[in-house]
Amino acid sequence: MDWDLFLTPYKQAVDELKIKLRGYREQYERVSEHSPIEFVTGRVKPIPSILDKARRKNIPLNQLQTQMQDLAGIRVTCQFVEDIKTVIELIRNRSDITVVEERDYIADKKESGYRSYHLVVNYPVHTISGEQMTLVEIQVRTMAMNFWATIEHSLNYKYEGRIPKEIKDRLQRAAEAAFHLDGEMSQIRGEIQEAHRHFMEKKID
Amino acid sequence: MDWDLFLTPYKQAVDELKIKLRGYREQYERVSEHSPIEFVTGRVKPIPSILDKARRKNIPLNQLQTQMQDLAGIRVTCQFVEDIKTVIELIRNRSDITVVEERDYIADKKESGYRSYHLVVNYPVHTISGEQMTLVEIQVRTMAMNFWATIEHSLNYKYEGRIPKEIKDRLQRAAEAAFHLDGEMSQIRGEIQEAHRHFMEKKID
Amino acid sequence: MDWDLFLTPYKQAVDELKIKLRGYREQYERVSEHSPIEFVTGRVKPIPSILDKARRKNIPLNQLQTQMQDLAGIRVTCQFVEDIKTVIELIRNRSDITVVEERDYIADKKESGYRSYHLVVNYPVHTISGEQMTLVEIQVRTMAMNFWATIEHSLNYKYEGRIPKEIKDRLQRAAEAAFHLDGEMSQIRGEIQEAHRHFMEKKID
Amino acid sequence: MDWDLFLTPYKQAVDELKIKLRGYREQYERVSEHSPIEFVTGRVKPIPSILDKARRKNIPLNQLQTQMQDLAGIRVTCQFVEDIKTVIELIRNRSDITVVEERDYIADKKESGYRSYHLVVNYPVHTISGEQMTLVEIQVRTMAMNFWATIEHSLNYKYEGRIPKEIKDRLQRAAEAAFHLDGEMSQIRGEIQEAHRHFMEKKID
Repeated sequence: MDWDLFLTPYKQAVDELKIKLRGYREQYERVSEHSPIEFVTGRVKPIPSILDKARRKNIPLNQLQTQMQDLAGIRVTCQFVEDIKTVIELIRNRSDITVVEERDYIADKKESGYRSYHLVVNYPVHTISGEQMTLVEIQVRTMAMNFWATIEHSLNYKYEGRIPKEIKDRLQRAAEAAFHLDGEMSQIRGEIQEAHRHFMEKKID
Repeated sequence: MDWDLFLTPYKQAVDELKIKLRGYREQYERVSEHSPIEFVTGRVKPIPSILDKARRKNIPLNQLQTQMQDLAGIRVTCQFVEDIKTVIELIRNRSDITVVEERDYIADKKESGYRSYHLVVNYPVHTISGEQMTLVEIQVRTMAMNFWATIEHSLNYKYEGRIPKEIKDRLQRAAEAAFHLDGEMSQIRGEIQEAHRHFMEKKID
Repeated sequence: MDWDLFLTPYKQAVDELKIKLRGYREQYERVSEHSPIEFVTGRVKPIPSILDKARRKNIPLNQLQTQMQDLAGIRVTCQFVEDIKTVIELIRNRSDITVVEERDYIADKKESGYRSYHLVVNYPVHTISGEQMTLVEIQVRTMAMNFWATIEHSLNYKYEGRIPKEIKDRLQRAAEAAFHLDGEMSQIRGEIQEAHRHFMEKKID
Repeated sequence: MDWDLFLTPYKQAVDELKIKLRGYREQYERVSEHSPIEFVTGRVKPIPSILDKARRKNIPLNQLQTQMQDLAGIRVTCQFVEDIKTVIELIRNRSDITVVEERDYIADKKESGYRSYHLVVNYPVHTISGEQMTLVEIQVRTMAMNFWATIEHSLNYKYEGRIPKEIKDRLQRAAEAAFHLDGEMSQIRGEIQEAHRHFMEKKID
């Protein structure tokens, strides 16, 4: 299997979607409004992870294109929980992206404490050998959710999915602290948004 | 007129098209083939230039969106004259870009000595206030054509379109030297392409 | 006063220091160690802010170069409170940077709740008119500290330094939630670092 | 040999020098003067090329740091032959770079037709394990010289240094065409520089 060739359209999809979603941020700033998007990052899944996941989920390598939804991944980080909804609407309204699945792990958080909103989308790219459809997973989260998720991800690798009870409890407390910070932030949000508008108009740092 | 707001979709169009066209280059390199694209640059027309051109061409400011074709500009630079054709085909074959006009100043160079291939295209962008169509001018040239054009452009500004005869003659000789270099390059091209393929496969710099 | 000319060396200082500090992050990742640096951002102080501050602090415009310490600003964001110390040591050990002042608002947080470590440094840049010394302020913070500081900054502008009691109380609660999250993170830190090492070695995402 | 670790300071040197030299270009534009620097690119020598060169030149791998001068390479491209001198002066005047060798293949071009000015410099970088001196080769060329050199480089790989007579003759003619273009450009240069100044002041594209 020529991985370089196979992954080329996914790399292109990630590059294009980063530019497209980052564009919103700049546009909000230009009209002095709070941007629901703080950061946009993206990656193509590393080959060992693809092989690992294909084995676990019993996906034949010749069906990766239709069966593995996160070969291309985009992550959008927001300041406030309320921003997540706005980002989802921006994505749903685009004619160049087709949403094929949504998973709301915020309303319905995972047992581990994981919170995030996932969209799986179809996105067409043009390569030197023509147009090709790609599946891309877009994760939308607050900074606190993101922080926690990064840590849980690392611990899961360390313990190969079997995190000891003591560590699990600590992780749970960190999840609660992150959740609490998001709550405090939401309360102060109205104030901040108005302040932000004021601030951008003055164009003073 | 709120220029910042008006030019936002053009800035976005330029950013997206740069990523899309640069993607080709990387793809050619990955399959060890000569890339017809050497550089891709882009710019939104500066406001004083817009005002100046609107005055000269009698375009009312509320008709800029449909009447001024180069508010957003993309420039693709190629190594060989032969590459220009390939680039044009790549653009014509995209479903996200609609070519509305083509001007071939290579087969039919301007009196001044100017050579380049121009495409005017329709390109849709999604902003925070919805989808919008933009006109973008894409110029395709060799490096030698580009070098010459940059200089002629500067001299035209200096002399406000009335370049003295002596300078004009020198400019003409430089145009011929650039044209001659392109010719020598074309002749050596077959060799180079094969060599390039060889070179990339070895992955030795 | 030619601001463009005056601010040129500060822009150059910011660009160079971003590259230099971001380099560390990549190096830690390459040896599979936890990086004490998560993000590095930078900015040159906008002209209206310079004028505003000069007025408030009674700094004559011809003494800006020696009297205003944050014309060039660098911000380093860390995952853990413990990382801040490591970053400070990396900076102190460089022969191309001279630390001229340090302010520890973490051990000794401001009344408002503000926490951060500030270093003021001398940094030489080479411009087209020769070498010039610049003063640069480097702020080192955790992500939670940074989040809180951004909000307080905006609110201060809105209320011109006179934030109403109710808002102040909310801001205080958010500062406590951020502080609490930093604490939970520190506790889980040893685990995470080891996990991170494990994770990078496997090179699985 | 841990190549990743060994090449880390060279990668950092390339990144820093690119920012430092590109800074000049921006500064010239800001004061509306012709920039002697058109492009700055850089690369760390790929591992197969290092091994190949070490074999050819009999350099033991543990002496690469002091014996191989182009592990880190920077290329500065200029519009005019006259600009090369200015770039060399800018580099010689920096206190953070020490020139250890200069080779003038412009006054004294290689038999093949190759023209370029080479500087070998010492440049200190700070890594997570402390300060380290690196050798960097800086090549300064016009665009026409660069174009020709790229092609000759590829052909050399194809024919493993033994380019057939016919191709060699063609290459020679292309070198002459490039040289001729540089000559025409020099003649028109005074005009262009003044025009450029005029053009930047008007801030019209």
